[in-house]
Amino acid sequence: MNKIELEKTHQRIKPYVHNTPVLTSQIINKLCDAEVYFKCENFQKMGAFKMRGAVNAILCLNTEQKTKGVVTHSSGNFAQALSLASNYLGVNAYIVMPKNAPKVKKAAVRSYGGVIIESDNTTKARETMALKVQNEKGATFIHPSNDTQVIYGQGTAAIELLKEYDDLDYLMAPIGGGGLIAGTILAAQNYSNQCKVIGAEPKEVDDAYRSLKSGKIESNDSSNTIADGLRTYLGSNNFPIIKQYIQEIICVDENEIVEAMKLVWERMKIVIEPSSAVPVAALIQNKEKFKNKKIGIIISGGNVDLSQLPF
Amino acid sequence: MNKIELEKTHQRIKPYVHNTPVLTSQIINKLCDAEVYFKCENFQKMGAFKMRGAVNAILCLNTEQKTKGVVTHSSGNFAQALSLASNYLGVNAYIVMPKNAPKVKKAAVRSYGGVIIESDNTTKARETMALKVQNEKGATFIHPSNDTQVIYGQGTAAIELLKEYDDLDYLMAPIGGGGLIAGTILAAQNYSNQCKVIGAEPKEVDDAYRSLKSGKIESNDSSNTIADGLRTYLGSNNFPIIKQYIQEIICVDENEIVEAMKLVWERMKIVIEPSSAVPVAALIQNKEKFKNKKIGIIISGGNVDLSQLPF
Repeated sequence: MNKIELEKTHQRIKPYVHNTPVLTSQIINKLCDAEVYFKCENFQKMGAFKMRGAVNAILCLNTEQKTKGVVTHSSGNFAQALSLASNYLGVNAYIVMPKNAPKVKKAAVRSYGGVIIESDNTTKARETMALKVQNEKGATFIHPSNDTQVIYGQGTAAIELLKEYDDLDYLMAPIGGGGLIAGTILAAQNYSNQCKVIGAEPKEVDDAYRSLKSGKIESNDSSNTIADGLRTYLGSNNFPIIKQYIQEIICVDENEIVEAMKLVWERMKIVIEPSSAVPVAALIQNKEKFKNKKIGIIISGGNVDLSQLPF
Repeated sequence: MNKIELEKTHQRIKPYVHNTPVLTSQIINKLCDAEVYFKCENFQKMGAFKMRGAVNAILCLNTEQKTKGVVTHSSGNFAQALSLASNYLGVNAYIVMPKNAPKVKKAAVRSYGGVIIESDNTTKARETMALKVQNEKGATFIHPSNDTQVIYGQGTAAIELLKEYDDLDYLMAPIGGGGLIAGTILAAQNYSNQCKVIGAEPKEVDDAYRSLKSGKIESNDSSNTIADGLRTYLGSNNFPIIKQYIQEIICVDENEIVEAMKLVWERMKIVIEPSSAVPVAALIQNKEKFKNKKIGIIISGGNVDLSQLPF
């Protein structure tokens, strides 16, 4: 991936996404004895960075593909992102969601214009249903985190941050399916001379950490984390990027995630989702490492169910 | 109050406060069929507009007064504001707080450098104790909402907003002790040709609404509102300004306040305190009135106890 391609991606999606603000907090800087720059994708359209990848993937389709629509399976932010991006671009979006997906998430997808197709609750059932939609509608399948154009799109959050602050020592992002961290790595390689990328993951779903050790994509036996956006595992397109170029992956406990989330809500007065608190927790738990450094953190999103808060 | 004095106030406090961001929300604009500009004092130092008035009041003291310190009675945001402002300016701050004030609020005052002086829980006991501190320490009493320099200081939030958006039709702010709304009125008079100021108040503590009707300062029999910053009543310095120049006061129900707060948290991804949600609720409950208008809302603060949320 060269810089020209990444820059084209950024220019391509610009009209459809927010250049989100970068916030700082004197209290958190003091707490960590470092300079921390929060790239606030919680203020992105539909409330998460996923909008970037969804827009890019659709814009890269040819005319015939656009006419026939797109399909994905997701019950999280990517379902909403693909729905809203499709809506903007006049494309049909078919979203395969398990029957037991929360009503509030289904309502959000519908409100953005996505067509929900229900499947049974297993991963296999969801994949089978997505394949069925591809065949019946001729729709193009867009993977939430492993699609190449999605990965490039997600990298544009870090591109914006590095264009504004070109002297960061570290860039941190949470690792779920791997799209955001892989895109962030590509951005750092092309828009900075020295910036190292560090991933953050809940210990409860440390598949990426173990994948890095074993050299192959690992999965999780359980998904018992509050960071609901990070329960997935890496893919064949993003793992090679991560394996080759990531500096390290830091894993954090559940209570550390909740504490970091609380700190950001209380002190920065912004609503972030648990997944976004994971790199903040990784920073706070490793103050010595980051002392006197300049650190960018991708705050991945702000979609939380206020009736289910951990405080 | 002429514009020169207000402008001097703004320049005086500038080095000590944030020029807070003005946010907009496509979703809320669409919901109200209007253009709404949120002046986000929840991002102000110590989390509320009160910092502005506290800084201004201290800066307007003479050298001898500064040496002897300041005293106030407050268990809310002004206690924290006066503590932090005094800390910045090298002045002693004595904060009279009732014995039963929440520990978390006392801890906040201490963390900002204020000296807590405990009193019994009645208003009379607090006032007596504040007087005692004035006599013993020679400290200057600063009223949280009725001090003239506090009122001017609070007006600077609206000044910043009107400097950025000079064509607002309405400016809305919550009414508690009256300092913010009086300052906002002075700002609108001097920095806009057409902007009308509307106050918003919980029905449960509608003392300002009744004061406007009766022509004298009314109090509340109960204080049963979630908007804990608005339980106080108007003062002799701010009431004449309010009485003469306010366009109207809109009162809202408790459930409307909670719904408005939830809307802002969920859709704008920012943490606002219940008092800040009161003008948002007033807007939403009066859509016809504000249709196609440009409305500025002072989001007064973001200090909430996350363990006591109403959701």
